[in-house]
Amino acid sequence: MASAALRPLCLCWALGAAAAAPNILLLLMDDMGWGDLGVFGEPSKETPNLDQMAAEGMLFLDFYAASPLCSPSYTPQDIVGGIPDSELLLPELLKKAGYTNKIIGKWHLGHRPQFHPLRHGFDQWFGSPNCHFGPYDSRERPNIPVYRDWEMLGRYYEDFKIDLKTGEANLTQLYLQEALDFISKQQASQQPFFLYWAIDATHAPVYASKQFLGTSQRGLYGDAVREIDDSIGKILKHLQQLGISENTFVFFTSDNGAALISAPKQGGSNGPFLCGKQTTFEGGMREPAIAWWPGHIPAGGVSHQLGSVMDLFSTSLSLAGLQPPSDRQIDGIDLLPVLLQGKIIDRPIFYYRGNELMAVRAGLYKAHYWTWSNSLEEHSKGIDFCPGQSVAGVTTHTQEEHTYLPLLFHLGRDPGEKYPLSFASEEYQRAVEHISGLLQQHRATLVPGQPQLNVCDQAVMEISSCLFISTSRQINSISNSICQEEEELLE
Amino acid sequence: MASAALRPLCLCWALGAAAAAPNILLLLMDDMGWGDLGVFGEPSKETPNLDQMAAEGMLFLDFYAASPLCSPSYTPQDIVGGIPDSELLLPELLKKAGYTNKIIGKWHLGHRPQFHPLRHGFDQWFGSPNCHFGPYDSRERPNIPVYRDWEMLGRYYEDFKIDLKTGEANLTQLYLQEALDFISKQQASQQPFFLYWAIDATHAPVYASKQFLGTSQRGLYGDAVREIDDSIGKILKHLQQLGISENTFVFFTSDNGAALISAPKQGGSNGPFLCGKQTTFEGGMREPAIAWWPGHIPAGGVSHQLGSVMDLFSTSLSLAGLQPPSDRQIDGIDLLPVLLQGKIIDRPIFYYRGNELMAVRAGLYKAHYWTWSNSLEEHSKGIDFCPGQSVAGVTTHTQEEHTYLPLLFHLGRDPGEKYPLSFASEEYQRAVEHISGLLQQHRATLVPGQPQLNVCDQAVMEISSCLFISTSRQINSISNSICQEEEELLE
Repeated sequence: MASAALRPLCLCWALGAAAAAPNILLLLMDDMGWGDLGVFGEPSKETPNLDQMAAEGMLFLDFYAASPLCSPSYTPQDIVGGIPDSELLLPELLKKAGYTNKIIGKWHLGHRPQFHPLRHGFDQWFGSPNCHFGPYDSRERPNIPVYRDWEMLGRYYEDFKIDLKTGEANLTQLYLQEALDFISKQQASQQPFFLYWAIDATHAPVYASKQFLGTSQRGLYGDAVREIDDSIGKILKHLQQLGISENTFVFFTSDNGAALISAPKQGGSNGPFLCGKQTTFEGGMREPAIAWWPGHIPAGGVSHQLGSVMDLFSTSLSLAGLQPPSDRQIDGIDLLPVLLQGKIIDRPIFYYRGNELMAVRAGLYKAHYWTWSNSLEEHSKGIDFCPGQSVAGVTTHTQEEHTYLPLLFHLGRDPGEKYPLSFASEEYQRAVEHISGLLQQHRATLVPGQPQLNVCDQAVMEISSCLFISTSRQINSISNSICQEEEELLE
Repeated sequence: MASAALRPLCLCWALGAAAAAPNILLLLMDDMGWGDLGVFGEPSKETPNLDQMAAEGMLFLDFYAASPLCSPSYTPQDIVGGIPDSELLLPELLKKAGYTNKIIGKWHLGHRPQFHPLRHGFDQWFGSPNCHFGPYDSRERPNIPVYRDWEMLGRYYEDFKIDLKTGEANLTQLYLQEALDFISKQQASQQPFFLYWAIDATHAPVYASKQFLGTSQRGLYGDAVREIDDSIGKILKHLQQLGISENTFVFFTSDNGAALISAPKQGGSNGPFLCGKQTTFEGGMREPAIAWWPGHIPAGGVSHQLGSVMDLFSTSLSLAGLQPPSDRQIDGIDLLPVLLQGKIIDRPIFYYRGNELMAVRAGLYKAHYWTWSNSLEEHSKGIDFCPGQSVAGVTTHTQEEHTYLPLLFHLGRDPGEKYPLSFASEEYQRAVEHISGLLQQHRATLVPGQPQLNVCDQAVMEISSCLFISTSRQINSISNSICQEEEELLE
């Protein structure tokens, strides 16, 4: 009897030891802002599952996107480029460690066959090469296709319904079911998996399933958030019920700040931060982020580690027991010492907009070398990346250079970037000197990249879903001033 | 054996029944904003004790001050008025139920003998009649006195040190020790108590004790918040160690929004809300609020009840088993059904600035009948209640009347009051009609009050520490435009 009673315990322990290469699940949101989760201060507090995930895991308060916009868009038909073969994507490397890799949702790294996710390390795909823009007509500009692996299943609006009037679409449910099924199959086959769940319900035009419509205090955008929160709760519960939660590393974050041009009905919240998507102010790039790995990451942790979505590349390799590629410079860092031992790794954050390095954060100081919200011409048409916010000399409508005398903010005292420090202060001198040194180091090792996504004549825009990309220093040449993401500005 | 084992249980039950009149502890902060606590989304998350208090109690996300400024100030020497005898204060009523009443900290309802807290229901006082403004000279304008009951112990700066250069002052520690001692004595004497802990470390000039200086990411203001958080943790722990936590109702809130004129070094954060102290935008009046009463209020509750600091008057009477006075109109509601059964009571919120009803909230809609931040003249001198925020036609620098066509916001979709609803929309028509009805009812029962605090010639300002005042409808006549709180605008 005693031996039988002990057996399950030993089995668990053995599984724990085998868990050297855990499953990896990345939950990447689209245009969700730092201020959209209850645990980050959203005043309606409607994300009980994500808040619970944070309570059971580690909350990152200073985590950044690699770019303030999700990816070049226009429509994928206009994009002639995509992810080059020379880039090593995370799933390509994870394959070597026996992982089965799946992407569910938005790819956004090129729609032509040579850029297809199954050509870049993924084994499975259910989703689309771009956001659910539209509806377009069926000739000049067909609707965005939805794929299962190499097979096109149909198109948004036509085969995958989105009702722009009511906001009803069951896509998040489809993506949820796909995730649950994949996880079940992997668990049954005892194969480690990498699942990249890149859903887009919070990208305008936002949508939610019928049972979530009208359930949020926040309107349709909040309905979408609630459905995502519910879905993530179901995914985590599924991992627990299958008994693999202690062998699955889960990370939740977003691709850039909330799109305030679409707020309040179709856009989210960046909490106390300045401006939103498209800008290199905190509202454009600081992201909600939660790590969850029961039994490994201590519950209830709160980290001030300066993190970047690029770190998920290095961290995932580390989890899989793999070495990062040695033939190139890697910007991401391995977050495991932060996650498992609560360490803080000193490192700066670089805020790029297109190919321009706009700002640098070190510790609590952030220096803006360039400021820009958007052009006066755009602004005069009602396109506003900083609605209700205006900081003289900071939220500028021309690209203002401050390379000789950067604008400096202390993000602890002033998270909203409203009070530039006096140029004459000792604090300014000290901080800017330190940051300038970091900037020089960064520039010395930077390898400028080739434009990959040619849109709008010669202009190109940055690939930012670069959690997969090993070499983010190969910044793609971009001309933001000519080509902006052409979304329909939904009211 | 069985009978002996049951005895403690019976005893507990008997105590529970005797707990019909629990101790009441009100923790009222000074100029602390909604966004200053981790649980409300402050990006540094430095309030573990208050966050824990919320996790063990009930968080109120829609709780309001009665006025957007703490009280008339100038200096108390200039105030000729105070709280009139006709007002029934909460401690006067609690006395009838056998409570011992103590105020620790700022009184702010008149400094002359007839207005002394011990004339208005309190049995004990340790604190001052006003904020720690100063230092003044010792002749023309002496420093603010500190009292123990009727005895003046000394003055701020002279006897109770505040170092304006370093921000060091041990006052919060004095107020903490005073609270711990009082609670111990009351517990020893088995007398129910009402303790009003109205500390002012977060009112400019902010201060903290030596051991907290430099410990916050947020600078001196954050140091003050951390010390308060630590102190409240100690008070709650003390209640638990004395075994009276289940017999003590604790409520934490603030007197108005963060004073953005003093930010970022000397002022706090209003999270995602518009403007700050002095204004009737959400930033001026929405407050952090937490109710804590282990064994009674379910842990981890989150309430969207529209609450007001005035409700603490009615709720406290209810806790003490007392009836509210029947000779006057009471605006506060008894929150016990909300706290104990999770109910939501339908009621509007009225936003007064001086004697002007500026705005009304019903459900998620808020209608502005008047808008005003401050005068252009003041603004041009750098006094800004909405730094970095500017919403055309909303954050106006003249007192703009909208009584015929109120500006309407949906606070769920748009907590920042940035996107007024279209006057032509059905949603606007429906909501404004509803709110206008509530406004008429309110006006029909309003009894205008007499000016009580004459400052600046004929001008007077509102008493807002009116959680004690039974009849808030006796709004005092005020001319805000002539007389503003004359604080030193500290950088």
